[in-house]
Amino acid sequence: MKDLKSIYRGYVDCLNRQDWDGLDVHVVQNVRYDGEGMGIEAYRELLEGNFRDIPDLRFEIDVLVAEGDRLACRLVFDCHPTAQFLGLAVNGRRIRFAENAIYEFEGSRIAAVWSVLDKAAIERQLG
Amino acid sequence: MKDLKSIYRGYVDCLNRQDWDGLDVHVVQNVRYDGEGMGIEAYRELLEGNFRDIPDLRFEIDVLVAEGDRLACRLVFDCHPTAQFLGLAVNGRRIRFAENAIYEFEGSRIAAVWSVLDKAAIERQLG
Repeated sequence: MKDLKSIYRGYVDCLNRQDWDGLDVHVVQNVRYDGEGMGIEAYRELLEGNFRDIPDLRFEIDVLVAEGDRLACRLVFDCHPTAQFLGLAVNGRRIRFAENAIYEFEGSRIAAVWSVLDKAAIERQLG
Repeated sequence: MKDLKSIYRGYVDCLNRQDWDGLDVHVVQNVRYDGEGMGIEAYRELLEGNFRDIPDLRFEIDVLVAEGDRLACRLVFDCHPTAQFLGLAVNGRRIRFAENAIYEFEGSRIAAVWSVLDKAAIERQLG
Protein backbone atom coordinates (compact mmCIF):
# COMPACT_ATOMS: atom_id res chain seq x y z
CA MET A 1 0.00 0.00 0.00
CA LYS A 2 1.20 3.52 -0.77
CA ASP A 3 2.08 5.67 2.21
CA LEU A 4 -0.72 7.70 3.74
CA LYS A 5 0.65 11.05 2.55
CA SER A 6 0.62 9.91 -1.09
CA ILE A 7 -2.87 8.51 -0.62
CA TYR A 8 -4.01 11.80 0.89
CA ARG A 9 -2.50 13.82 -1.95
CA GLY A 10 -4.55 11.67 -4.32
CA TYR A 11 -7.69 12.59 -2.36
CA VAL A 12 -6.87 16.32 -2.53
CA ASP A 13 -6.27 16.02 -6.28
CA CYS A 14 -9.68 14.36 -6.59
CA LEU A 15 -11.29 17.33 -4.81
CA ASN A 16 -9.45 19.89 -6.92
CA ARG A 17 -10.52 18.07 -10.10
CA GLN A 18 -14.08 17.98 -8.69
CA ASP A 19 -14.09 14.31 -9.65
CA TRP A 20 -17.13 13.50 -7.53
CA ASP A 21 -17.75 10.15 -9.17
CA GLY A 22 -14.24 9.16 -8.09
CA LEU A 23 -14.76 10.18 -4.47
CA ASP A 24 -15.54 6.63 -3.31
CA VAL A 25 -11.99 5.59 -4.18
CA HIS A 26 -10.85 7.92 -1.38
CA VAL A 27 -13.72 7.91 1.16
CA VAL A 28 -15.63 5.01 2.76
CA GLN A 29 -19.42 4.81 2.32
CA ASN A 30 -20.19 5.40 6.01
CA VAL A 31 -17.67 8.19 6.57
CA ARG A 32 -17.91 9.94 9.94
CA TYR A 33 -17.58 13.71 10.31
CA ASP A 34 -16.73 15.49 13.58
CA GLY A 35 -17.64 12.35 15.52
CA GLU A 36 -21.00 11.73 13.88
CA GLY A 37 -22.20 9.50 11.07
CA MET A 38 -22.46 11.41 7.79
CA GLY A 39 -22.10 9.01 4.85
CA ILE A 40 -20.38 9.62 1.55
CA GLU A 41 -23.44 11.14 -0.17
CA ALA A 42 -23.78 13.95 2.38
CA TYR A 43 -20.00 14.39 2.39
CA ARG A 44 -20.05 14.77 -1.39
CA GLU A 45 -22.90 17.29 -1.12
CA LEU A 46 -20.90 19.30 1.42
CA LEU A 47 -17.90 19.44 -0.92
CA GLU A 48 -19.97 20.18 -4.02
CA GLY A 49 -21.69 22.98 -2.08
CA ASN A 50 -18.30 24.46 -1.21
CA PHE A 51 -17.35 24.57 -4.90
CA ARG A 52 -20.73 26.14 -5.77
CA ASP A 53 -20.17 28.83 -3.12
CA ILE A 54 -16.53 29.32 -4.17
CA PRO A 55 -16.00 28.80 -7.91
CA ASP A 56 -12.20 29.28 -7.60
CA LEU A 57 -11.87 26.99 -4.57
CA ARG A 58 -8.61 25.06 -4.50
CA PHE A 59 -7.34 22.82 -1.69
CA GLU A 60 -3.65 23.42 -1.01
CA ILE A 61 -1.67 21.33 1.47
CA ASP A 62 0.45 23.38 3.87
CA VAL A 63 1.49 21.06 6.73
CA LEU A 64 1.10 17.27 6.85
CA VAL A 65 1.51 14.90 9.82
CA ALA A 66 0.92 11.18 9.35
CA GLU A 67 1.09 8.36 11.87
CA GLY A 68 -0.34 4.87 11.54
CA ASP A 69 -3.86 5.15 10.13
CA ARG A 70 -4.20 8.85 10.99
CA LEU A 71 -3.20 11.97 9.11
CA ALA A 72 -3.48 15.64 10.04
CA CYS A 73 -3.30 18.44 7.49
CA ARG A 74 -3.30 22.21 7.48
CA LEU A 75 -5.02 23.18 4.27
CA VAL A 76 -4.82 26.76 3.03
CA PHE A 77 -7.28 28.56 0.77
CA ASP A 78 -7.00 31.76 -1.25
CA CYS A 79 -10.30 32.31 -3.01
CA HIS A 80 -13.33 34.48 -3.79
CA PRO A 81 -16.66 33.16 -2.48
CA THR A 82 -19.38 34.59 -4.71
CA ALA A 83 -21.89 35.51 -2.00
CA GLN A 84 -22.22 33.95 1.50
CA PHE A 85 -19.66 31.57 3.01
CA LEU A 86 -20.00 30.17 6.55
CA GLY A 87 -22.80 32.66 7.06
CA LEU A 88 -20.54 35.60 6.17
CA ALA A 89 -21.35 37.99 3.33
CA VAL A 90 -18.09 37.72 1.40
CA ASN A 91 -19.66 38.84 -1.91
CA GLY A 92 -16.73 38.14 -4.20
CA ARG A 93 -13.98 39.54 -2.02
CA ARG A 94 -10.67 37.67 -1.76
CA ILE A 95 -10.24 35.72 1.45
CA ARG A 96 -7.35 33.62 2.72
CA PHE A 97 -7.91 31.13 5.50
CA ALA A 98 -6.84 27.75 6.82
CA GLU A 99 -8.53 24.49 7.70
CA ASN A 100 -6.95 22.13 10.21
CA ALA A 101 -8.25 18.63 9.56
CA ILE A 102 -7.51 15.23 11.06
CA TYR A 103 -8.42 12.06 9.19
CA GLU A 104 -8.65 8.40 10.13
CA PHE A 105 -8.17 5.93 7.31
CA GLU A 106 -9.42 2.40 6.75
CA GLY A 107 -6.86 1.04 4.34
CA SER A 108 -6.50 3.69 1.64
CA ARG A 109 -9.87 5.38 2.30
CA ILE A 110 -10.91 8.14 4.70
CA ALA A 111 -13.25 6.76 7.38
CA ALA A 112 -13.44 9.76 9.72
CA VAL A 113 -12.81 13.50 9.43
CA TRP A 114 -12.46 16.06 12.22
CA SER A 115 -12.24 19.48 10.62
CA VAL A 116 -12.11 23.09 11.78
CA LEU A 117 -12.23 26.09 9.42
CA ASP A 118 -10.70 29.37 10.57
CA LYS A 119 -13.89 31.44 10.40
CA ALA A 120 -12.42 34.09 12.75
CA ALA A 121 -9.63 34.77 10.22
CA ILE A 122 -12.21 35.40 7.49
CA GLU A 123 -14.16 37.74 9.78
CA ARG A 124 -10.97 39.72 10.46
CA GLN A 125 -10.36 40.11 6.72
CA LEU A 126 -13.92 41.27 6.07
CA GLY A 127 -13.46 43.89 8.77
CA MET B 1 14.29 11.89 24.75
CA LYS B 2 10.71 11.01 25.61
CA ASP B 3 8.36 10.48 22.72
CA LEU B 4 6.54 13.53 21.41
CA LYS B 5 3.13 12.45 22.70
CA SER B 6 4.43 12.20 26.29
CA ILE B 7 6.13 15.55 25.90
CA TYR B 8 2.92 17.08 24.59
CA ARG B 9 0.86 15.64 27.47
CA GLY B 10 3.30 17.36 29.82
CA TYR B 11 2.62 20.65 28.04
CA VAL B 12 -1.16 20.21 28.33
CA ASP B 13 -0.77 19.39 32.04
CA CYS B 14 1.23 22.61 32.42
CA LEU B 15 -1.62 24.59 30.84
CA ASN B 16 -4.28 22.90 32.98
CA ARG B 17 -2.24 23.64 36.13
CA GLN B 18 -1.84 27.24 34.86
CA ASP B 19 1.85 26.84 35.65
CA TRP B 20 2.88 29.89 33.63
CA ASP B 21 6.33 30.10 35.14
CA GLY B 22 6.93 26.56 33.88
CA LEU B 23 5.82 27.36 30.33
CA ASP B 24 9.37 27.83 29.05
CA VAL B 25 10.08 24.16 29.70
CA HIS B 26 7.54 23.39 26.96
CA VAL B 27 7.73 26.36 24.56
CA VAL B 28 10.74 28.05 22.91
CA GLN B 29 11.33 31.77 23.49
CA ASN B 30 10.65 32.77 19.88
CA VAL B 31 7.63 30.56 19.35
CA ARG B 32 5.76 31.12 16.07
CA TYR B 33 1.96 31.18 15.84
CA ASP B 34 -0.02 30.67 12.62
CA GLY B 35 3.11 31.35 10.59
CA GLU B 36 4.13 34.57 12.34
CA GLY B 37 6.58 35.40 15.09
CA MET B 38 4.86 35.70 18.46
CA GLY B 39 7.31 34.96 21.28
CA ILE B 40 6.67 33.16 24.52
CA GLU B 41 5.53 36.27 26.45
CA ALA B 42 2.68 37.01 24.04
CA TYR B 43 1.85 33.29 23.90
CA ARG B 44 1.64 33.20 27.69
CA GLU B 45 -0.60 36.29 27.66
CA LEU B 46 -2.89 34.62 25.11
CA LEU B 47 -3.23 31.54 27.34
CA GLU B 48 -3.64 33.53 30.56
CA GLY B 49 -6.32 35.59 28.82
CA ASN B 50 -8.18 32.41 27.87
CA PHE B 51 -8.23 31.31 31.53
CA ARG B 52 -9.42 34.77 32.59
CA ASP B 53 -12.27 34.60 30.06
CA ILE B 54 -13.07 30.98 30.97
CA PRO B 55 -12.44 30.22 34.66
CA ASP B 56 -13.31 26.50 34.21
CA LEU B 57 -11.19 26.10 31.07
CA ARG B 58 -9.60 22.68 30.77
CA PHE B 59 -7.61 21.33 27.81
CA GLU B 60 -8.60 17.74 27.01
CA ILE B 61 -6.82 15.71 24.35
CA ASP B 62 -9.16 13.90 21.95
CA VAL B 63 -7.08 12.76 18.94
CA LEU B 64 -3.28 12.79 18.67
CA VAL B 65 -1.11 12.29 15.60
CA ALA B 66 2.69 12.49 15.90
CA GLU B 67 5.37 12.17 13.26
CA GLY B 68 8.99 13.24 13.48
CA ASP B 69 9.11 16.69 15.06
CA ARG B 70 5.44 17.45 14.37
CA LEU B 71 2.32 16.67 16.36
CA ALA B 72 -1.35 17.32 15.63
CA CYS B 73 -4.03 17.32 18.28
CA ARG B 74 -7.78 17.68 18.45
CA LEU B 75 -8.44 19.33 21.79
CA VAL B 76 -11.97 19.42 23.17
CA PHE B 77 -13.42 21.94 25.62
CA ASP B 78 -16.55 21.88 27.78
CA CYS B 79 -16.70 25.13 29.69
CA HIS B 80 -18.52 28.32 30.70
CA PRO B 81 -16.94 31.57 29.47
CA THR B 82 -18.00 34.30 31.87
CA ALA B 83 -18.77 37.00 29.33
CA GLN B 84 -17.33 37.35 25.79
CA PHE B 85 -15.30 34.63 24.06
CA LEU B 86 -14.01 35.00 20.47
CA GLY B 87 -16.22 38.06 20.21
CA LEU B 88 -19.33 36.07 21.12
CA ALA B 89 -21.52 36.97 24.10
CA VAL B 90 -21.49 33.61 25.87
CA ASN B 91 -22.31 35.12 29.28
CA GLY B 92 -21.82 32.05 31.43
CA ARG B 93 -23.57 29.54 29.19
CA ARG B 94 -22.05 26.08 28.71
CA ILE B 95 -20.28 25.61 25.39
CA ARG B 96 -18.51 22.60 23.91
CA PHE B 97 -16.11 23.04 21.05
CA ALA B 98 -12.92 21.72 19.53
CA GLU B 99 -9.54 23.12 18.56
CA ASN B 100 -7.45 21.42 15.89
CA ALA B 101 -3.82 22.35 16.44
CA ILE B 102 -0.58 21.36 14.75
CA TYR B 103 2.75 21.87 16.50
CA GLU B 104 6.36 21.78 15.40
CA PHE B 105 8.90 20.94 18.09
CA GLU B 106 12.55 21.81 18.54
CA GLY B 107 13.74 19.01 20.79
CA SER B 108 11.19 18.80 23.58
CA ARG B 109 9.80 22.32 23.14
CA ILE B 110 7.08 23.74 20.91
CA ALA B 111 8.57 26.06 18.28
CA ALA B 112 5.51 26.66 16.08
CA VAL B 113 1.75 26.38 16.50
CA TRP B 114 -0.96 26.42 13.83
CA SER B 115 -4.31 26.45 15.58
CA VAL B 116 -7.97 26.73 14.59
CA LEU B 117 -10.83 27.02 17.10
CA ASP B 118 -14.30 25.88 16.01
CA LYS B 119 -16.05 29.23 16.42
CA ALA B 120 -18.92 28.14 14.14
CA ALA B 121 -19.75 25.32 16.58
CA ILE B 122 -20.02 27.83 19.44
CA GLU B 123 -22.25 30.08 17.34
CA ARG B 124 -24.58 27.16 16.62
CA GLN B 125 -24.85 26.41 20.35
CA LEU B 126 -25.62 30.02 21.20
CA GLY B 127 -28.41 29.96 18.61
